[in-house]
Amino acid sequence: MTEFERLSAIEEIKQLKARYFRCMDTKDWAGMVDVYAPDAEADFRAESPDGFVKGAAQIVAYTRGSIATVTTVHHGHMPEITVLSADEAVGVWAMEDLLYWPEGEGITRADGTRISRLHGFGHYHETYRVHGGRWRIQTLRLTRLRVEVG
Amino acid sequence: MTEFERLSAIEEIKQLKARYFRCMDTKDWAGMVDVYAPDAEADFRAESPDGFVKGAAQIVAYTRGSIATVTTVHHGHMPEITVLSADEAVGVWAMEDLLYWPEGEGITRADGTRISRLHGFGHYHETYRVHGGRWRIQTLRLTRLRVEVG
Amino acid sequence: MTEFERLSAIEEIKQLKARYFRCMDTKDWAGMVDVYAPDAEADFRAESPDGFVKGAAQIVAYTRGSIATVTTVHHGHMPEITVLSADEAVGVWAMEDLLYWPEGEGITRADGTRISRLHGFGHYHETYRVHGGRWRIQTLRLTRLRVEVG
Repeated sequence: MTEFERLSAIEEIKQLKARYFRCMDTKDWAGMVDVYAPDAEADFRAESPDGFVKGAAQIVAYTRGSIATVTTVHHGHMPEITVLSADEAVGVWAMEDLLYWPEGEGITRADGTRISRLHGFGHYHETYRVHGGRWRIQTLRLTRLRVEVG
Repeated sequence: MTEFERLSAIEEIKQLKARYFRCMDTKDWAGMVDVYAPDAEADFRAESPDGFVKGAAQIVAYTRGSIATVTTVHHGHMPEITVLSADEAVGVWAMEDLLYWPEGEGITRADGTRISRLHGFGHYHETYRVHGGRWRIQTLRLTRLRVEVG
Repeated sequence: MTEFERLSAIEEIKQLKARYFRCMDTKDWAGMVDVYAPDAEADFRAESPDGFVKGAAQIVAYTRGSIATVTTVHHGHMPEITVLSADEAVGVWAMEDLLYWPEGEGITRADGTRISRLHGFGHYHETYRVHGGRWRIQTLRLTRLRVEVG
């Protein structure tokens, strides 16, 4: 691929990840399915032991089950995207997320603490593939620098 | 337009929005006027019922009246910019803002609460036009995911 | 240089700064040396009176001495990168940082207050040069909009 095609792919992948965040925070689940490859794999085990999910529809169902009633803010920063070929790329993103559970809801963590608010920081480690003529997330793994809860 | 001109326009629009944020937070009001088209429209009604303003100078006067004495931090994230033609584009940005009013100042909200600190999250929905050979913000509308006050 | 080379340089500089942040927060000190030109200068005097440091290795030693045991989150936003020639560029980045000192550690500030947590906002003002075929940070200066401590 040409250097120009490489730059164009990087911009497309940035907009792909932007849709990922916007669909998550506006609860646009149909839009969310579309950011993943059909056979995508998401690894959220930094969050929860059962957080390894396969398949675009399954990943979105998992996400929806976790945050459908939660006000969420997810932001990505500082992408390092490497295009490997015309249909393969890898990337790292810094991230920050805020979750506000509704009154009376919340989650119980492994250590027994009950939380209704979470503010976290970490990185997404991702791979991308072209499916159906568009870049999509093929694999996603979240690592954490810090999580604050309340 | 060519794919190359499209990428170039996207980068210029990103830098335009970067100037918007930098001028706001460093109180560079002259620089701020320059980011808007002369007949721009800004819709901040998610913030305040009177927040619909027309005209670059009027928008900056409105902003200045709201935050001239306030320490502000505004960050934009994850742009989705679509170039429609050589002089028209649309975009969505995730955003986060922090406002710290000086001691003794602050604002009274519609529900009567007095606040001296605000931490908000949302999206800018924007259109861009080329005026005088440069991309500028033609319309801007802010929507909110969450606002925390103190 | 061509407009295309300019866009390509901007993307490379964005990924350079992304490595800067990722290496800092994951404590990858070898990677961190590599983001600076050998004769780079960093001006952190907004943080500390002794914060003017020359030389890539010295800057990283200074940073390491400041935060090796501290959980840190640094994010950059909204770059305004201007490429001046094939090997010179300037840029401004908005930034946000969080520092969490371990239990029992922390720092004493000039005014005598003891802090174990810092949340700051500001801008990086930078220049870049090509050294050894890659863009690197030549000079870096941090200015602050606001610092919250706890």
